[in-house]
Amino acid sequence: MDTLKVGVIGYGYWGPNLARNFAELPSADLVAIADLSDNQIERARSKFPEIVLTKDYHDLFGMGLDAVVVATPPAAHYPVAKEALENNLHVLVEKPITRNSQEAEELIKLSDERGLTLMVGHTFAYNSAVHAMKKFIESKELGDIHYIDSARLNLGLFQKSANVLWDLAVHDISILLYLLDQNPISVSAQGMKCVFKDIYDIAYLNVVFPNNIMAHLHVSWLDPCKVRRVTIVGSKKMVVFNDVVNEEKIRIYDKGVDKPEYTNGFGDFQFSYRYGDITIPNVRYIEPLRQECQHFIDSIVNKTRPKSCGREGLRVIKILEAAERSMNNGSTHEVLEW
Amino acid sequence: MDTLKVGVIGYGYWGPNLARNFAELPSADLVAIADLSDNQIERARSKFPEIVLTKDYHDLFGMGLDAVVVATPPAAHYPVAKEALENNLHVLVEKPITRNSQEAEELIKLSDERGLTLMVGHTFAYNSAVHAMKKFIESKELGDIHYIDSARLNLGLFQKSANVLWDLAVHDISILLYLLDQNPISVSAQGMKCVFKDIYDIAYLNVVFPNNIMAHLHVSWLDPCKVRRVTIVGSKKMVVFNDVVNEEKIRIYDKGVDKPEYTNGFGDFQFSYRYGDITIPNVRYIEPLRQECQHFIDSIVNKTRPKSCGREGLRVIKILEAAERSMNNGSTHEVLEW
Amino acid sequence: MDTLKVGVIGYGYWGPNLARNFAELPSADLVAIADLSDNQIERARSKFPEIVLTKDYHDLFGMGLDAVVVATPPAAHYPVAKEALENNLHVLVEKPITRNSQEAEELIKLSDERGLTLMVGHTFAYNSAVHAMKKFIESKELGDIHYIDSARLNLGLFQKSANVLWDLAVHDISILLYLLDQNPISVSAQGMKCVFKDIYDIAYLNVVFPNNIMAHLHVSWLDPCKVRRVTIVGSKKMVVFNDVVNEEKIRIYDKGVDKPEYTNGFGDFQFSYRYGDITIPNVRYIEPLRQECQHFIDSIVNKTRPKSCGREGLRVIKILEAAERSMNNGSTHEVLEW
Amino acid sequence: MDTLKVGVIGYGYWGPNLARNFAELPSADLVAIADLSDNQIERARSKFPEIVLTKDYHDLFGMGLDAVVVATPPAAHYPVAKEALENNLHVLVEKPITRNSQEAEELIKLSDERGLTLMVGHTFAYNSAVHAMKKFIESKELGDIHYIDSARLNLGLFQKSANVLWDLAVHDISILLYLLDQNPISVSAQGMKCVFKDIYDIAYLNVVFPNNIMAHLHVSWLDPCKVRRVTIVGSKKMVVFNDVVNEEKIRIYDKGVDKPEYTNGFGDFQFSYRYGDITIPNVRYIEPLRQECQHFIDSIVNKTRPKSCGREGLRVIKILEAAERSMNNGSTHEVLEW
Repeated sequence: MDTLKVGVIGYGYWGPNLARNFAELPSADLVAIADLSDNQIERARSKFPEIVLTKDYHDLFGMGLDAVVVATPPAAHYPVAKEALENNLHVLVEKPITRNSQEAEELIKLSDERGLTLMVGHTFAYNSAVHAMKKFIESKELGDIHYIDSARLNLGLFQKSANVLWDLAVHDISILLYLLDQNPISVSAQGMKCVFKDIYDIAYLNVVFPNNIMAHLHVSWLDPCKVRRVTIVGSKKMVVFNDVVNEEKIRIYDKGVDKPEYTNGFGDFQFSYRYGDITIPNVRYIEPLRQECQHFIDSIVNKTRPKSCGREGLRVIKILEAAERSMNNGSTHEVLEW
Repeated sequence: MDTLKVGVIGYGYWGPNLARNFAELPSADLVAIADLSDNQIERARSKFPEIVLTKDYHDLFGMGLDAVVVATPPAAHYPVAKEALENNLHVLVEKPITRNSQEAEELIKLSDERGLTLMVGHTFAYNSAVHAMKKFIESKELGDIHYIDSARLNLGLFQKSANVLWDLAVHDISILLYLLDQNPISVSAQGMKCVFKDIYDIAYLNVVFPNNIMAHLHVSWLDPCKVRRVTIVGSKKMVVFNDVVNEEKIRIYDKGVDKPEYTNGFGDFQFSYRYGDITIPNVRYIEPLRQECQHFIDSIVNKTRPKSCGREGLRVIKILEAAERSMNNGSTHEVLEW
Repeated sequence: MDTLKVGVIGYGYWGPNLARNFAELPSADLVAIADLSDNQIERARSKFPEIVLTKDYHDLFGMGLDAVVVATPPAAHYPVAKEALENNLHVLVEKPITRNSQEAEELIKLSDERGLTLMVGHTFAYNSAVHAMKKFIESKELGDIHYIDSARLNLGLFQKSANVLWDLAVHDISILLYLLDQNPISVSAQGMKCVFKDIYDIAYLNVVFPNNIMAHLHVSWLDPCKVRRVTIVGSKKMVVFNDVVNEEKIRIYDKGVDKPEYTNGFGDFQFSYRYGDITIPNVRYIEPLRQECQHFIDSIVNKTRPKSCGREGLRVIKILEAAERSMNNGSTHEVLEW
Repeated sequence: MDTLKVGVIGYGYWGPNLARNFAELPSADLVAIADLSDNQIERARSKFPEIVLTKDYHDLFGMGLDAVVVATPPAAHYPVAKEALENNLHVLVEKPITRNSQEAEELIKLSDERGLTLMVGHTFAYNSAVHAMKKFIESKELGDIHYIDSARLNLGLFQKSANVLWDLAVHDISILLYLLDQNPISVSAQGMKCVFKDIYDIAYLNVVFPNNIMAHLHVSWLDPCKVRRVTIVGSKKMVVFNDVVNEEKIRIYDKGVDKPEYTNGFGDFQFSYRYGDITIPNVRYIEPLRQECQHFIDSIVNKTRPKSCGREGLRVIKILEAAERSMNNGSTHEVLEW
């Protein structure tokens, strides 16, 4: 079949990476880019002199495209994606899919009615290291999952129209949902507003999953060290995913605490600890964004539901909304409805 | 003056380190050790063949000692320390000082009445790296303190009669109180019982201090990596104390976010980030326990209140009690009375 | 003035990076790419659909270019660069400039006669971290330079037509020459042929500079760890440049050994050691290759000698030749003629 | 049988560690310590108040000891060990066994004649991590050994009566001999005298073993970073021993370059690289010095030749002598006679 004609709306921080990948995919043609800023249009021109460049994204709706990528600031995700779907275009929208669950539900409904592909840019669902972790969980190599601890820390980037939750926690929550593949029962969160009175720049989340699985997330715009780490503690083994190193991102620890078979009535039992080998598997790394873009094209062509479909985007939004309610109400315990 | 005659009660995990230090201090004489276990008595004999070794700690009360060190399991801290004080002995008791604040108050009252020194083994109050951090805070080099994040993680050691809070958080709380030198307003905590149904092996604490200073503690008996880290984020600079490395324990980051002088009505402001140098000061390291033991002797001789006196021990206990209440009641917000 | 028209010859491992940079430089136009392989031509087409793509590099000589970049395998550097100069094109040739000094001298002579710019791709001369090291040396902040130790280790990539010396040591030697800015007196080298009987895959070099400055280089195609490190030990301070980390590439150690003022006749002196702070300066990083390409354009426009001119390329070649002689003759001491 | 009576001669830098271990070994009794310095005698008294302490080591020869440990400065190793043997005492002497091979041969001869145990303190022969490496070599898990690279770097400690070769390389050479278990064919070395005109403070050694196995050693008293690393590159796997970390000292890399089965006449072959997993085995760590002291006692009791017997000490000395000759003669190639 022919290659798909793709346009990119929003050429700011992330848009250039999406444009580059679609330009390089054999099964796609990058034919147009829209951005409000003259500077960004110029940046795009130096990379893609031959394609359509416009400041009005509406131009992309009348030129026979198959799909558009929405990489605008979050506030514009909903209206732009909506228009694109109404113009019968398949849509890949950056995370978070929208700013609230109602908007997300509308987009899902619209894409279902029109039989269009709606996909969210949850990059980690296409990350080889995350795939490896999921494999260790599903193969039961880790045993039962005790808890997951996730940290995403750095200095900045502050955004006016968002907070650290919607900027960073969105990644960790999408990883959690992808790994555990079930809906959490409840969430509570604690937020701090350090630099600005009205912007959360640090947050701690507790997410409770079925089967007594707990997850704790720490996200911060105000940490001296760049940290992107997920630790999964199982009853048999433990895994750490360190995403700031270029190599050796995954470590499997054959460590644990074994309960004694028998403990007498006087609580006088002994633990046995396992201190086994540490393994650093050679995970072959392919640029996750490349995988993601290819997956978008394949989902359209094969009419299959993408791994990070609109409903996945909605699941993340519902958890972010609950966490924000909890932060605003003094760390209340928010039960999730599914 | 003469050297002080010191006895050590409890020669298990930590006792040998205390015994060694008092044996080596010129201003002290280690003259007796008591432990219930024959094995430990034998271990003690191989190191100190010449001193009194007994299985009954009461023997230490009739031999003209000046002071005793209580390094028993936590459950015995209170009764043993109480007897020692009643026998007019100065007491250095390991952390946590007791298992509840009422017991701690009794010991404080008793030591006050008798004019005896009561000191708790909050080792970090005698740690050069912690001193350095306190200096950076007091000199205002860090600016206003935004928040403190502390993590103390490892695999084990599980204890039957304690939980991770009383085993590990006791360190972080004593560090926090020492650094900020004020009483927290409230605490909330989230605990997990992974390996045993009735023992908390992981806990996350939020401690709120005056002036909007927040502290978050993560303690775990169930982590694959050994972590002992305190991060202090100030408005001017940030400090990280990494206690698992042998050198370069302290790093000062000249990093931060500067608010714009002026922000127009449309929230259309720009941040400026400072990415300055990182400095690793050459902190001269002296064994903290050695400093602590010397400080105990000096406090007795000079009749001065030790840095980690009984009241400091009580402050820590009150926070641990509140945190435990919060964990048991589903992470409630516990206001602290002082 | 107009932008310069640039063509790239050789689109294999490194060519694409050069092409990308010249395509993005405002002061240059990438107008043509030549490569022998259909695959590479296709790869180039996906990135630069609009430019001339040819399998015969001679095509680039008849299309009014200002300059060409020679990124072919080393064996072709000399003939291709020679033809380009004969066609009055300015030339940026990848390192090593040629396979022997005679060829390099010819290219230099030719470019001088024709008043053309001849520049070698010694990327490190355009690396901010290397600039920082040079600054510390020139400002005498390090004191007198005692020695420099450099290591460039990795697994592969083996090449049929080269050895580890010409592949890796070329980098370290160009760094050394740039930092010390003087010609070495002599060189000796020890090589190993581990995987193939006729290819050196590991080499150790000793390079002696005036003023008793010694440099030791370790290059290997056969090491499990990726290492790219330069250590400069001065009488006052020491610097380490670690090029495999993304941040904190440079560390300055205020450490050293101070000689005693007076030492009596019995050699009974005491040393004093300085263990001062470690500083990690915030070196602002700009892609070195981008700087290099801009410098090439500027040198042509301003008719100035590039920092890494042909003569610099020749200096490196002469040291590589001497080192190879030494390796082949059992680690002989090779004096260098300048 | 009874425990052995042991005396320690020399209570400076290393002596206290030896004394402590023998004091704690059930099969030995520490009964006397000799040192020339009053300070050291006092230090010893605070640890061992009950034993004989003397400034004249001859006192130890008349008190019915079974063995002595010689931990004096290197210059005194030979005369003191000789006297001890002449007094029919078993001897454990610190490394290097003597200052030249002739002295070492004399001690060996003397101990043989008298049927006494003569052992050298090559601690690494008793190090669990080194044992693990030897196991990987002997099990052929690494394949054929291509080369070994060893580095031992630090700031100081300078010694008046020695140079970096006799202070640090002695460790690496004993490790090499222990691992490869054969005599090297030749050695060449390059030394630098940075701080003092007459003291080598940096040295690079090349040691050639049979079967084309090469070893390169880098020792330095003048490096900003503390490095103690041994890398073994085999045809199948590679191992790195990092001795400055507290845990994860050994890493096994399943990496390598595989030669093509068939290479046509035109040298047009392809390599295949193996990038497999990295394994960090859980090596159970027991204090090497404890193992060493126990081994000394066992060798005496069982009348067996110790792993690090006098002849091992002599082998190391001969290589050090040859390396020093090479350094003094401008890095000559010194063939070793065995």
